[in-house]
Amino acid sequence: MNAIAKGRLIGVGTGPGDPELLTLKAVRALAEADVVAHFAKRGNNSNARAIVGAHFRPDLIELPLLYPVTTEIDKEHSDYRSQIADFYEESAERVAEHLSAGRMVAVLSEGDPLFYGSYMHLHVRLAHRFPTEVIPGVTAMSGCWSATGLPIVQGDDVLTVLPGTMSEFELTRRLADTDAAVIMKVGRNLPKIRRALEATDKLARAVYVERGTMSGGVSMRLADKQDDKAPYFAIVLVAGWSGRPEALVESGA
Amino acid sequence: MNAIAKGRLIGVGTGPGDPELLTLKAVRALAEADVVAHFAKRGNNSNARAIVGAHFRPDLIELPLLYPVTTEIDKEHSDYRSQIADFYEESAERVAEHLSAGRMVAVLSEGDPLFYGSYMHLHVRLAHRFPTEVIPGVTAMSGCWSATGLPIVQGDDVLTVLPGTMSEFELTRRLADTDAAVIMKVGRNLPKIRRALEATDKLARAVYVERGTMSGGVSMRLADKQDDKAPYFAIVLVAGWSGRPEALVESGA
Ligand SMILES: C[S@@+](CC[C@H](N)C(=O)[O-])C[C@H]1O[C@@H](n2cnc3c(N)ncnc32)[C@H](O)[C@@H]1O
Ligand SMILES: C[S@@+](CC[C@H](N)C(=O)[O-])C[C@H]1O[C@@H](n2cnc3c(N)ncnc32)[C@H](O)[C@@H]1O
Repeated sequence: MNAIAKGRLIGVGTGPGDPELLTLKAVRALAEADVVAHFAKRGNNSNARAIVGAHFRPDLIELPLLYPVTTEIDKEHSDYRSQIADFYEESAERVAEHLSAGRMVAVLSEGDPLFYGSYMHLHVRLAHRFPTEVIPGVTAMSGCWSATGLPIVQGDDVLTVLPGTMSEFELTRRLADTDAAVIMKVGRNLPKIRRALEATDKLARAVYVERGTMSGGVSMRLADKQDDKAPYFAIVLVAGWSGRPEALVESGA
Repeated sequence: MNAIAKGRLIGVGTGPGDPELLTLKAVRALAEADVVAHFAKRGNNSNARAIVGAHFRPDLIELPLLYPVTTEIDKEHSDYRSQIADFYEESAERVAEHLSAGRMVAVLSEGDPLFYGSYMHLHVRLAHRFPTEVIPGVTAMSGCWSATGLPIVQGDDVLTVLPGTMSEFELTRRLADTDAAVIMKVGRNLPKIRRALEATDKLARAVYVERGTMSGGVSMRLADKQDDKAPYFAIVLVAGWSGRPEALVESGA
């Protein structure tokens, strides 16, 4: 029996949105890949695909991995949980088929793959079965604080990264006890996030960034934002470095 | 009087060490820059310069910014503090001269410029005086968890970034109260970091990465590291995602 040709799995960080924030290594991986897989909601285009599409070869095999429709089901509900677990299992098997056939499969991931990325669900199911490499990317938070010129942490500062999906109690408790904070997954959690920042006297310092580094990106002091509408691609930043020499007024993204 | 031609200040993230982890945008900035400034200790070469040197044009003006010799002076000492403040003031003025002459100055920063980067000391002194842009980079932590294939945070996980320079009490308190952690500035702080991880039952999960993504990079479980020697380019990672489907044994960097 001959050894079976084994493919290679590559998690590719696409950066936060600006196609120029792709790394040289990610560009090379896309040039070498036989298959590019990307997650998307059914009916939506993959955002990661949009960021890197210009680098696709004409003969590239695309493998869209479409989330099951979930809008009507509560995320805490066990039906949702088992549906989504099944989806990741099936997705991993679809990728595994290409890998077993000896193909190199690049899985796109917005920002950095191992930082709250969907790619992770494939990684934990496949990295022990196939040669795997992860190409880090510029995270959304780095893209956002750079776009607003906000110095986030320096010296002995502690930075806490908080998902906006946490309870208001936990958000408040943790915001009270950190120098700098990044709040991800803002969306419909913005009213809660605002209250937690207010309760910890940090609302005045909080900066809201929507679609950072993407076209149509905006940023403003959260206190100046009049409504509580926020899209999926939104983040809230609270800078540390209280001892910095000059308090710069930040410019827009 | 004619309007004076004003230059442009660009903070350029070079990524964690692998020259391929430079972004396309950083490559373009280096191609366009008239002057490239980089911080280094006297007698050492700038590491950021080594990462991106291949992209320098022959006619580029280099501006090395050399830290005053500080090894004999205690960091808490006021002489050190005033020396270093003077150094940042002088460095900012040297950069400002080029900017005032209408030149585009790229300031190199390892990893991401606004994330514990030296560039920040120039940014706060110059960004209100000259047109300024910050090009984010892949952080050291992203480079390190990618090099070891370690899924750092998922879902509702909280990530805490801690400088190893903090007191043992603070390190311990904060490690006890987070899902995932990144400890930067390891160096001579490793014994203290080890004790704090042990006290919070996290030593078994901690991963030590030295020179991540650089040539000669190594990673191992911190519990398996026999000595307490760590260079400047070392980091400790504790992954979250306790509910992940399979507990993968991590492979080396
Ligand atoms: C599932 S997480 C993925 C994070 C990504 N892997 C990273 O490295 O940053 C998605 C969240 O990232 C944030 N995000 C991603 N891209 C963004 C952008 N361009 N502007 C603002 N926030 C963004 C939003 O908070 C969003 O809810
Ligand atoms: C002053 S901070 C600069 C951080 C950088 N601006 C970033 O975005 O990651 C320097 C610390 O970063 C970490 N570091 C930087 N590069 C590293 C590498 N290649 N491997 C491991 N740690 C690294 C070390 O902990 C080091 O003490």
